[in-house]
Amino acid sequence: MTKTNAGRFFEDYAVGQVIRHAVPRTVKMGERALYHALYPARHALYSSDQFAQDCGLPFSPLDDMIAFHVVFGKTVPDVSLNAVANLGYAEGRWITPVWPGDTLRSESEVIGVKQNSNGKTGVVWVRTRGMNQHDELVLEYVRWVMVRKRDVEAAAPETVVPELKPALSASDLVIPKGLDFTGYDFELAGEPHRWGDYEIGEKIDHVDGVTIEEAEHMMATRLWQNTAKVHFDATFRPDGQRLIYGGHIISMARALSFNGLANAQMIVGLNGGAHANPCFSGDTVRAWSEVLDKAETDAPGVGAVRLRLVATKEAESFELKGEDGKYLPHVLLDLDYWALMPV
Amino acid sequence: MTKTNAGRFFEDYAVGQVIRHAVPRTVKMGERALYHALYPARHALYSSDQFAQDCGLPFSPLDDMIAFHVVFGKTVPDVSLNAVANLGYAEGRWITPVWPGDTLRSESEVIGVKQNSNGKTGVVWVRTRGMNQHDELVLEYVRWVMVRKRDVEAAAPETVVPELKPALSASDLVIPKGLDFTGYDFELAGEPHRWGDYEIGEKIDHVDGVTIEEAEHMMATRLWQNTAKVHFDATFRPDGQRLIYGGHIISMARALSFNGLANAQMIVGLNGGAHANPCFSGDTVRAWSEVLDKAETDAPGVGAVRLRLVATKEAESFELKGEDGKYLPHVLLDLDYWALMPV
Amino acid sequence: MTKTNAGRFFEDYAVGQVIRHAVPRTVKMGERALYHALYPARHALYSSDQFAQDCGLPFSPLDDMIAFHVVFGKTVPDVSLNAVANLGYAEGRWITPVWPGDTLRSESEVIGVKQNSNGKTGVVWVRTRGMNQHDELVLEYVRWVMVRKRDVEAAAPETVVPELKPALSASDLVIPKGLDFTGYDFELAGEPHRWGDYEIGEKIDHVDGVTIEEAEHMMATRLWQNTAKVHFDATFRPDGQRLIYGGHIISMARALSFNGLANAQMIVGLNGGAHANPCFSGDTVRAWSEVLDKAETDAPGVGAVRLRLVATKEAESFELKGEDGKYLPHVLLDLDYWALMPV
Repeated sequence: MTKTNAGRFFEDYAVGQVIRHAVPRTVKMGERALYHALYPARHALYSSDQFAQDCGLPFSPLDDMIAFHVVFGKTVPDVSLNAVANLGYAEGRWITPVWPGDTLRSESEVIGVKQNSNGKTGVVWVRTRGMNQHDELVLEYVRWVMVRKRDVEAAAPETVVPELKPALSASDLVIPKGLDFTGYDFELAGEPHRWGDYEIGEKIDHVDGVTIEEAEHMMATRLWQNTAKVHFDATFRPDGQRLIYGGHIISMARALSFNGLANAQMIVGLNGGAHANPCFSGDTVRAWSEVLDKAETDAPGVGAVRLRLVATKEAESFELKGEDGKYLPHVLLDLDYWALMPV
Repeated sequence: MTKTNAGRFFEDYAVGQVIRHAVPRTVKMGERALYHALYPARHALYSSDQFAQDCGLPFSPLDDMIAFHVVFGKTVPDVSLNAVANLGYAEGRWITPVWPGDTLRSESEVIGVKQNSNGKTGVVWVRTRGMNQHDELVLEYVRWVMVRKRDVEAAAPETVVPELKPALSASDLVIPKGLDFTGYDFELAGEPHRWGDYEIGEKIDHVDGVTIEEAEHMMATRLWQNTAKVHFDATFRPDGQRLIYGGHIISMARALSFNGLANAQMIVGLNGGAHANPCFSGDTVRAWSEVLDKAETDAPGVGAVRLRLVATKEAESFELKGEDGKYLPHVLLDLDYWALMPV
Repeated sequence: MTKTNAGRFFEDYAVGQVIRHAVPRTVKMGERALYHALYPARHALYSSDQFAQDCGLPFSPLDDMIAFHVVFGKTVPDVSLNAVANLGYAEGRWITPVWPGDTLRSESEVIGVKQNSNGKTGVVWVRTRGMNQHDELVLEYVRWVMVRKRDVEAAAPETVVPELKPALSASDLVIPKGLDFTGYDFELAGEPHRWGDYEIGEKIDHVDGVTIEEAEHMMATRLWQNTAKVHFDATFRPDGQRLIYGGHIISMARALSFNGLANAQMIVGLNGGAHANPCFSGDTVRAWSEVLDKAETDAPGVGAVRLRLVATKEAESFELKGEDGKYLPHVLLDLDYWALMPV
């Protein structure tokens, strides 16, 4: 029993601590093919080497969400095994694309701790960094979780709450080297609308829905070596249901957003996100987006667009929160991100 | 709402129109591995680089049905999003094998339109071509579908019904460059019977059955970027069932046909095909074949065989149609194709 | 009907016979990605090229169980299509790692036959060898199965029962060329315990559980081109259940054993194994291990550990057999293997 990992509890975290996460991972075309089988992903830059080359890249990178899931998955045994809730994300930036054959590893620095007033749990903030085999920074983001205390009698640590940007500004974003949308083929991309056609405040219903299956969300979650019991073990929750990894909903909603946002090709910033309600097998996931902001960039032909991506189950309205300010029960995800789009 | 693709309606098609379909796709070994996970595919030429080399090819190509599904999938948003029925195929030819790393795109030319007498729908014929990154023709086929009219009051177009060959003749078939079956290893291929052993009119029961799961048909269909709602969204049909992509049944039946036709290695021609009845999760798919024709070819050791491939659910008989000439309810697929076999 | 493979019956086997199994298979990164999607596999040597290079290997090999499943799968049509039971394994040795791009084939030599007293069935022992495209031996193992007779009146063959080692000794094991654990990174591997920390007799509960889905076990089993009807066809058994391939449980349990045995990196020997009870979709698989033996090796920093790996459903105890000496109903697998671990 003593040789198995019981996970960290609240009192095991201290500000300044750096946790080097286990199990580096080489990702290649197999992971890409699986991504296309698990999600209705059609963004052309991630589908075709030739299309990517016509946009100034050496070949098609792995999907930005593959980078996120692989980096995130490694943190689970160290950060969220005893987590009660995944509270938020901030300051997420994609720095270097992931190319087939790259080996990713990740580490997290504890940047905040705050014990809750009930004395049983606390909030931990970590800044996670994903690196490739050249020690280049691939991705970084801040995440905070509520974690159980091992011993409710343990003394509370000094409270440190990090100052986080409510949203990245366009100047914070890193544009992949060489990216050039001046020769962009809108017809092959599957969408005539360009950066100039989207207006701040505009909402887009992505129309399509996907009914979720146990086998699919488990395969996806395992592929990222995310091992949280609650996703895989039907005996773990009293209701016998397997809770679906929140990242599965992000990828599903992002893929569905192709229909209306096919030209929002690359994700470069994550401003925030909430997994508003749990999703279970049998739910039908739909998505809508809202244009929150727009910005120009220095890269040729490349504009930035800040989007709210909302995933829902069943419902087909743009309603998000109730009069009490809480997410409505049909809302699964409320994500705030920056993407790059041809101007 | 206006930025999402609502699909073309009958009055949007005109003879001579060429539609360049969106989202090119690079396919590699990941797609091949998934094909082997989703279908009981065992034809040796598509399983082993060494076997393919012993047959004169540089290495093992991707399965002919992968080529078909990828090319077909791209046409869905432009051709069949508002289709009521997939009516038929003709004049299908595989021209150039697909090698791992190839990037496929496709385009369709409208070659026929005919409004139905009810005034609500019409039939559209398209000739679809799949090309690789060298602009070589990989695959072409004619397909016709029944499509809804947007406006039932719209005037009917001039009727054009293309003349299509009831079946390709052997001289229409393209044999892959270098193919040579003179050193064919029948033991490694898993089947002692050669071209000369099959007689016209002979029927072969492929014995095995596979029970279909939602997760599998959705992963397969997504992998080809086929996004028709009816395959994925359990809320779309009044009966709450997800209709299985007809191509899933083709691949399943073709893979099952290994047991009795392991040497029918390469598919080179598609003469016709009918998706006779819908298939749903839980159905157990079986298959039988009938030898329709045989022909010699110029390639060393290579014969051609024309086969009827029938997929059924549950039943284990060779019955196909009732006294009324209609397919029996247990028949899922009736496909007519040419394959290459060692003489 | 005559062209389909009905499989061999007991009287078709004779000692000395060598069966060359059909359908060679090229395996690459796609198979590896699928392995990571189907099982919670996290052993670092099979996850990261860089980690493998730091252990003296050219890059990350394919999982040892991929090698086993591919070699095993080819034997099914020739050895176990008419098998009533899979009785045991012995003398299994992994000789040469499988690298992405290798092409595997397999052959089996009949080394024993013994008709059962009921006259209806018999036991057949085969030694199966897997080879790569360079004709190097990749893997060998002995397996014995109970097979039906075609004709109960057929004369019994002379009984030959091979002498098999109850367990391999450490000197029988082949250490992959170049393997060097002196610079092993325990933190990246995800486990602080090394060879010296494990004691003979020690038992480890691997804690996690995975609930099994039809789509997943069928995809896994198909991926290895294992075509036994009972795994795929829900109409085959009177109870309408699909029996899960025993190898699926081996891979699942081995992957779960990461939590407590993350440093038992490479499997090099298979001493024996029993599929104690059948597993069906919906069962939740757990695992525990017992340290049976330890040995030093000549390779730098590399120790060998002999482990019992037990898979169970639902139960969370170390109980294995009842007072009658029979496996308890919740035990799925009892496997005895040698693994390599940093000292």
